[in-house]
Amino acid sequence: VIIMENRITIIGGGSWGTAIAQLLSKNNYKVLICLRDEKNKDSINYCHLNKRYFPEYELSLNINATCDLEKAVKYSSYIVLAVPTHASRSVINNIRPFLNDNHIFIITAKGIEEDTYLRNSEIIKELTVNPFVILSGPTHAEEVIKGLPSAAVIAADNKELAKEIQYLFMTSSFRVYTNTDVIGVELSGAVKNIIALASGIADGLNYGDNTKAALITRGLSEMRCLGQYLGGKTLTFSGLAGLGDLIVTCTSMHSRNRRFGIEIGKGNSFDNALKKINQVVEGVKTTRAIYNCIKEKNINVELPITNQVYQVLFNNKDPLKAVNDLMLRDAKHEIENCIK
Amino acid sequence: VIIMENRITIIGGGSWGTAIAQLLSKNNYKVLICLRDEKNKDSINYCHLNKRYFPEYELSLNINATCDLEKAVKYSSYIVLAVPTHASRSVINNIRPFLNDNHIFIITAKGIEEDTYLRNSEIIKELTVNPFVILSGPTHAEEVIKGLPSAAVIAADNKELAKEIQYLFMTSSFRVYTNTDVIGVELSGAVKNIIALASGIADGLNYGDNTKAALITRGLSEMRCLGQYLGGKTLTFSGLAGLGDLIVTCTSMHSRNRRFGIEIGKGNSFDNALKKINQVVEGVKTTRAIYNCIKEKNINVELPITNQVYQVLFNNKDPLKAVNDLMLRDAKHEIENCIK
Repeated sequence: VIIMENRITIIGGGSWGTAIAQLLSKNNYKVLICLRDEKNKDSINYCHLNKRYFPEYELSLNINATCDLEKAVKYSSYIVLAVPTHASRSVINNIRPFLNDNHIFIITAKGIEEDTYLRNSEIIKELTVNPFVILSGPTHAEEVIKGLPSAAVIAADNKELAKEIQYLFMTSSFRVYTNTDVIGVELSGAVKNIIALASGIADGLNYGDNTKAALITRGLSEMRCLGQYLGGKTLTFSGLAGLGDLIVTCTSMHSRNRRFGIEIGKGNSFDNALKKINQVVEGVKTTRAIYNCIKEKNINVELPITNQVYQVLFNNKDPLKAVNDLMLRDAKHEIENCIK
Repeated sequence: VIIMENRITIIGGGSWGTAIAQLLSKNNYKVLICLRDEKNKDSINYCHLNKRYFPEYELSLNINATCDLEKAVKYSSYIVLAVPTHASRSVINNIRPFLNDNHIFIITAKGIEEDTYLRNSEIIKELTVNPFVILSGPTHAEEVIKGLPSAAVIAADNKELAKEIQYLFMTSSFRVYTNTDVIGVELSGAVKNIIALASGIADGLNYGDNTKAALITRGLSEMRCLGQYLGGKTLTFSGLAGLGDLIVTCTSMHSRNRRFGIEIGKGNSFDNALKKINQVVEGVKTTRAIYNCIKEKNINVELPITNQVYQVLFNNKDPLKAVNDLMLRDAKHEIENCIK
């Protein structure tokens, strides 16, 4: 594998974009972060600090920032997209005029577009002809930036391209595996947040470790059922982008989805719970999108956890009743055909 | 499914035997626990308390205890074995004289016999001709006895037998799935404890949530590689007995294996760590058994985590060095042939 250049562009100066910048700079790449906030740009360029997201963490001298999208896109052939899913379409549209055939997208957003049900790579395919890879896995920005051991996946249709980007990111504390199942990796990243909501609800109801382990396990089975139906590969869901990310999201207090679920489980209303978190809760959008997508497209897959989360969030179902209904379903064989 | 009798025998009056007794009594079965401690027997019979394991939890009037093994075996056709793996052989030998063809074993121990590398069902097959099922999954006794929602698996070669026992155990708070992969379910229960040791070591080194999620995910892949080689089925390892139990064991402070690993990760010697836990740490035996079994039988499966845990426990390898060696292995494809 040969890496052609030593420069990388990151679109998005949030916590994840900043953590990736620091990670890549440790591999001796020069990184240019493109962000909107002029003050934060100056803070990165002159003080080597992202004052908004990591005010106490000194960044590498190899990291610079700009607010000029054209400059950022022309800086490198590697374009890391570190913006949330709902911003993907507009950002890619803005990037388009500056793209050439050599540009490669590295997608890091986890979600599906709410109205179109498209994955991020499908949005890119719709708007550009450029190749792309997905970076996913259990990687809290707060831990990656500190160099705590983490492992992730680079997924691409083209295995050679995946290997190229694998070497770009691999360090002694960030272990990267390749995977050729783009669909499975992207769906995992989106659907895990629904299970995290359920997991939080169970925590809010003061249920125990057994309940959570069962929810994660059956949630994984649900992710796999849906994912296989939509073209993902079985083992991807048991990998880092599936199971690994699911575990982190369901057990960490840093997960907004889990924290939102806890508030619901404690008996708070939807609006009150949202107010308490006071940030976008990605899993809420994903629950609605998946629920509607299944209905609209007549997808005959059983999603008992997703359905109960939907009923609790959008039909005022009592969380306790929802958990009980999950427990009282017909006796089943564990590994069964999940097609209805 | 027809359950033929309303009586069940449990061999072993520890925390798990007691929790199962309480669970079954809620399904209106009469339960006889066979234990060795005369005082504890009287306490259960006269005060409805297992004073040693659950001193504050009142047991159902449907639960009685005896120290008479013959009486216990003749009480019911359902014999739940709730003793640790190292006691299985002698207990089954003691039961043998009283068995008839109708007796069915329900195995709950998780481990492999250290010198023979046999699973519990293989010990039963060696000593008796009776049918058996395995009960496994993420089921802390402390939570099951309280009726907190839990889910588990009943595994048997014979699906109809699995269904019969499934209905025996299923309650509104204890959800049971069937599975026909006995090998996979038993191996999962044993090998998960090795990964729990690794998980504890990482915690002792103050690594974060990313590290733990990666260890659990790669640990599951390791369990699956070994298990498939030995005849288990892929999806079993992603189920409740595999992944579900793995998650509980790697994340709960009730897990002795994890706690032992934490002491090692903090820099304690093997002997000091054992002293601090002051109880049998099943994963230590399993690590040695699996390591030796692989070598002796020339099993060509890569077990990087097991190998590092073995080096740390038995060859004084520095835990920090072990984790670094895990991170610095060659770049890999995520879903690969795990045969060397």
